Amino acid sequence: MSAKLPADAKGIYVIAATPFYDDGRIDFDSIDRLVDFYLKCGVHGMTVLGVMGEFQKLSESETIDVARRFITAAKGRIPTIVGVSNPGTAQLTKIARTSMEAGAAGVMVMPIPGLRTDEAVLGYMRGVLKELGLSIPVCVQDYPQLSGVYFSAGCFLQMVDEFPQIAMFKHEEAPGLRKLSAIRRACDGKARRTMPILCGNGGIHLPQEYRRGADGGMTGFAFPDMMVRMHALFAAGKADEAEDLYDLYLPILRHELQPGIGLALRKEILRRRGAIGSAAVRAPGPKLDADDIAELDQLLVRLERKTGKAVTKI
Amino acid sequence: MSAKLPADAKGIYVIAATPFYDDGRIDFDSIDRLVDFYLKCGVHGMTVLGVMGEFQKLSESETIDVARRFITAAKGRIPTIVGVSNPGTAQLTKIARTSMEAGAAGVMVMPIPGLRTDEAVLGYMRGVLKELGLSIPVCVQDYPQLSGVYFSAGCFLQMVDEFPQIAMFKHEEAPGLRKLSAIRRACDGKARRTMPILCGNGGIHLPQEYRRGADGGMTGFAFPDMMVRMHALFAAGKADEAEDLYDLYLPILRHELQPGIGLALRKEILRRRGAIGSAAVRAPGPKLDADDIAELDQLLVRLERKTGKAVTKI
Amino acid sequence: MSAKLPADAKGIYVIAATPFYDDGRIDFDSIDRLVDFYLKCGVHGMTVLGVMGEFQKLSESETIDVARRFITAAKGRIPTIVGVSNPGTAQLTKIARTSMEAGAAGVMVMPIPGLRTDEAVLGYMRGVLKELGLSIPVCVQDYPQLSGVYFSAGCFLQMVDEFPQIAMFKHEEAPGLRKLSAIRRACDGKARRTMPILCGNGGIHLPQEYRRGADGGMTGFAFPDMMVRMHALFAAGKADEAEDLYDLYLPILRHELQPGIGLALRKEILRRRGAIGSAAVRAPGPKLDADDIAELDQLLVRLERKTGKAVTKI
Amino acid sequence: MSAKLPADAKGIYVIAATPFYDDGRIDFDSIDRLVDFYLKCGVHGMTVLGVMGEFQKLSESETIDVARRFITAAKGRIPTIVGVSNPGTAQLTKIARTSMEAGAAGVMVMPIPGLRTDEAVLGYMRGVLKELGLSIPVCVQDYPQLSGVYFSAGCFLQMVDEFPQIAMFKHEEAPGLRKLSAIRRACDGKARRTMPILCGNGGIHLPQEYRRGADGGMTGFAFPDMMVRMHALFAAGKADEAEDLYDLYLPILRHELQPGIGLALRKEILRRRGAIGSAAVRAPGPKLDADDIAELDQLLVRLERKTGKAVTKI
Repeated sequence: MSAKLPADAKGIYVIAATPFYDDGRIDFDSIDRLVDFYLKCGVHGMTVLGVMGEFQKLSESETIDVARRFITAAKGRIPTIVGVSNPGTAQLTKIARTSMEAGAAGVMVMPIPGLRTDEAVLGYMRGVLKELGLSIPVCVQDYPQLSGVYFSAGCFLQMVDEFPQIAMFKHEEAPGLRKLSAIRRACDGKARRTMPILCGNGGIHLPQEYRRGADGGMTGFAFPDMMVRMHALFAAGKADEAEDLYDLYLPILRHELQPGIGLALRKEILRRRGAIGSAAVRAPGPKLDADDIAELDQLLVRLERKTGKAVTKI
Repeated sequence: MSAKLPADAKGIYVIAATPFYDDGRIDFDSIDRLVDFYLKCGVHGMTVLGVMGEFQKLSESETIDVARRFITAAKGRIPTIVGVSNPGTAQLTKIARTSMEAGAAGVMVMPIPGLRTDEAVLGYMRGVLKELGLSIPVCVQDYPQLSGVYFSAGCFLQMVDEFPQIAMFKHEEAPGLRKLSAIRRACDGKARRTMPILCGNGGIHLPQEYRRGADGGMTGFAFPDMMVRMHALFAAGKADEAEDLYDLYLPILRHELQPGIGLALRKEILRRRGAIGSAAVRAPGPKLDADDIAELDQLLVRLERKTGKAVTKI
Repeated sequence: MSAKLPADAKGIYVIAATPFYDDGRIDFDSIDRLVDFYLKCGVHGMTVLGVMGEFQKLSESETIDVARRFITAAKGRIPTIVGVSNPGTAQLTKIARTSMEAGAAGVMVMPIPGLRTDEAVLGYMRGVLKELGLSIPVCVQDYPQLSGVYFSAGCFLQMVDEFPQIAMFKHEEAPGLRKLSAIRRACDGKARRTMPILCGNGGIHLPQEYRRGADGGMTGFAFPDMMVRMHALFAAGKADEAEDLYDLYLPILRHELQPGIGLALRKEILRRRGAIGSAAVRAPGPKLDADDIAELDQLLVRLERKTGKAVTKI
Repeated sequence: MSAKLPADAKGIYVIAATPFYDDGRIDFDSIDRLVDFYLKCGVHGMTVLGVMGEFQKLSESETIDVARRFITAAKGRIPTIVGVSNPGTAQLTKIARTSMEAGAAGVMVMPIPGLRTDEAVLGYMRGVLKELGLSIPVCVQDYPQLSGVYFSAGCFLQMVDEFPQIAMFKHEEAPGLRKLSAIRRACDGKARRTMPILCGNGGIHLPQEYRRGADGGMTGFAFPDMMVRMHALFAAGKADEAEDLYDLYLPILRHELQPGIGLALRKEILRRRGAIGSAAVRAPGPKLDADDIAELDQLLVRLERKTGKAVTKI
């Protein structure tokens, strides 16, 4: 059983893929293998059933089975956050409670599409957080590129002030470097409690985000081992070395970040690294064609040349 | 057990509300009552688990239970179409098959958000229809105001040509009168098989759509009895009388059509008409405030004055 | 020369069409004729170069020439508001100043696309209003269906508090009845100065908006004479009579409200009423086809039958 | 006077910034300086009054003055394309003709917002190209992230087949690598004439686009000199060396690509490189704050360290 999300969470929380067989059934054995892989990479936490986990293509019972298997496989060695965003608050709450009972460290919630103003976002979050109660730590996901929901730094700060159970901010509005700085400054541990800020958006600005005070990253990038080493270098005050390491991987990171097909590319890399059995994405979803494969081959050859080590090596 | 959707379906297919108790649980008894109400109104068919049915806020098992209860309550007296739109094709297919086994006459499918061109829409529909197979009649829902997916008349015609199981077009692009005319002309029974076209979009242009050749309406308007009488008048060649009747209800129809709060207004009217036990909308969802209630009261008083009959009367 | 917008503006401010010849050149003589028509209709004010005025298809010099001609034709008998929304603040300011020098009563500003939060909207308006200065009365247009910019009632109230030159609110968010009520209550003349609220969105909820406290309407509906009579009835406390009158025109009002083609329909009705010489819309713009014309003919015949007077009559 | 765009255009066409003084007036002297800078960088062509040129914030007369000054400064040494996208076809045509008379090599057209299907895009382009006539070479800009208009590869091929004046494709849909491959294969010089494809989208996938057959790049990246060298290496068959060079600049390229603030960053780099006198962006537009400046400083220091040369050096 994992402990709950700590108030000072930091580091690399990997967004876990959900492994499927080629025919679309869930590959539970690959969940175990994938967790081992992430642990070998040294990740500090794991978020399951996010966008990269194809949560929208799972039934409710599959959702719960997948969350349980990830949590069980992690054996409490790292905290597991479960993505519970859902059009219905009752379903959201049910999945959240079941996940916490199964040992989750917290849940991640993204405001649903259709909220137009800070007032509307706050109203929505109040409804959800009242149902979830005080005992479930919540990571608020700010991903307007997907949800279409924009809220201000001030709106998030109001959530922090109203709801003690908010335990983490997943920052991925783009462009969003100034919003990060604003929240970082406001949650300074004096005027307001501190707040772990983990950055997503594929990690495309991660070194800049660290320099602006981010506590870590939360992405599905297929080389979380690099991010873990980068985090350690930043923590050791070696920011330039950290960014040098990151820059070696930037070409493949940028390639993975393409909407839609990016998920298929990530799963293919995870497959090549031995982390999952099949790169299958559930329908409707992208499939790599011969051009895509050749392109990926070449980018990985370049990565191996630059880093001097095999892609499969952690 | 209902028969499957006929090739010449026509008339008023009501979009059924899903009744809940005030605490959000499904009110299965009210499903029976609601079906009785719709049958008394004389509707020609019924579509369950559409947007108005809050399908996105139901778990998979609730979805199936609700579909079954509606179908059972209808006792084969009218065809029941089940909305099965879903981010995952496997879930869509599972719900569709289960619904057909339970006696549904067909299913309704809306292309998922994120499809950008006719090519992409066709690609998606090919994937879904291959899984559904030839034996499940499909109503294609064209509702870009909700989905963000726009496709051309030509794109729909290509679907008609490729897939014999397409049995109905739910037209609700707005503005869309020309698209309706284009499809009507192209599906003329000579160059191409005929195709039932039922119009949604709250019925806001329904008389004009009838005059342009629509076969009926498919909306959740809380006075389907009026639409049934209007359909009969159009069928009898009394177009002006039909439109006179419709115009009496246009003020309330327009009021109900407001996005978001419209659902709460419709359920409140259905409650007042005795069709369901509670007007509750599942969270997150709109609730009527005192101003909204007073406004609705007044619009209904005006309707009673104009039509000379009680709102509750069918 | 008109006076500036009064602090207690009310009534029907018609959104003026911009008349073109069939070849797309501006028809200045029809501007004179159109102003005469609007004055005969009894409108209380006029807004030129709004969306219905096709302002985006005019060059800067045409913009200024058109504004001047409308103002000159009005001869100060009614206040003229000039729409000055523009991607560039310098251009906006230039057009605003030139319009005021020519005799405009005020200008209308819509926050530009791309503003995502109340903070961003306020930031934008501060930039614009600082340039415009204190002497130019500003009507704030809230039309998110076009601009994609949503702001809250609270955001508008903050504008009211910060900027004394804000003289009018053009309300057309949809659905937006509650926002109207919120602003109406907050601008009560005690806790906060009063604020004229004129409703747009084609007038589709205008009686309800009057009942909730709106001060008038600002739309391009081709029968502003009806709206003027309706306003007088509301002002005389005859709300039900007012709404009875409105309801007679609701079928055509709803038909005109279709995005895109609605503009062509309005100009065609204005042409038939003798207000302009040609119904031409500048390219790229919709043209009515034979079906559209037949449909419009029929709706107007029905209107004449219901109202007992010729369409051309004011 | 430049010649018109050749049928086999290739290379780096830089998107020119429009230089302003700090007070927002156009800095015509900096236009001359900027053209000299671009020529020293070795660019193969220049596109003025694109998005990066802030075309929407210029009046019509400013638009024409700026286009003329760029063309004059280039003295026919490189072809100049003028962005003419405009809500009104008449204005578009007027600016296009004036630009061609002033010596432009062609114009760039982006389908206007609001077009929903391939049919609608084709309809729009037919209207515009009919007005422009056969003698003005047209580059079609495919930038749905800005315009919201998506069209398929097949739709563009139909344009190519219908309109001989289409002379270039500016590809910047994202993700769009497959669309590029599809158009490249279809415009093979046998089944269909060849078609220059220049890639935009900030150059974020440019090496992959070259490998898929792109003819060049068209971006506002502030180091066009790097892109010119990269192009030469690709042309010489040294693809890996080309990509090695590109990868050195990828961190700054990615940083510049941020929507909104990216323009301010680019202009600041151009200022530091001596290409323009002020980094001012016309209001409403982003301004760099102290954090932004420090971040840019650091990224440029890193670039200098990696490339071994001063940022200002070409």
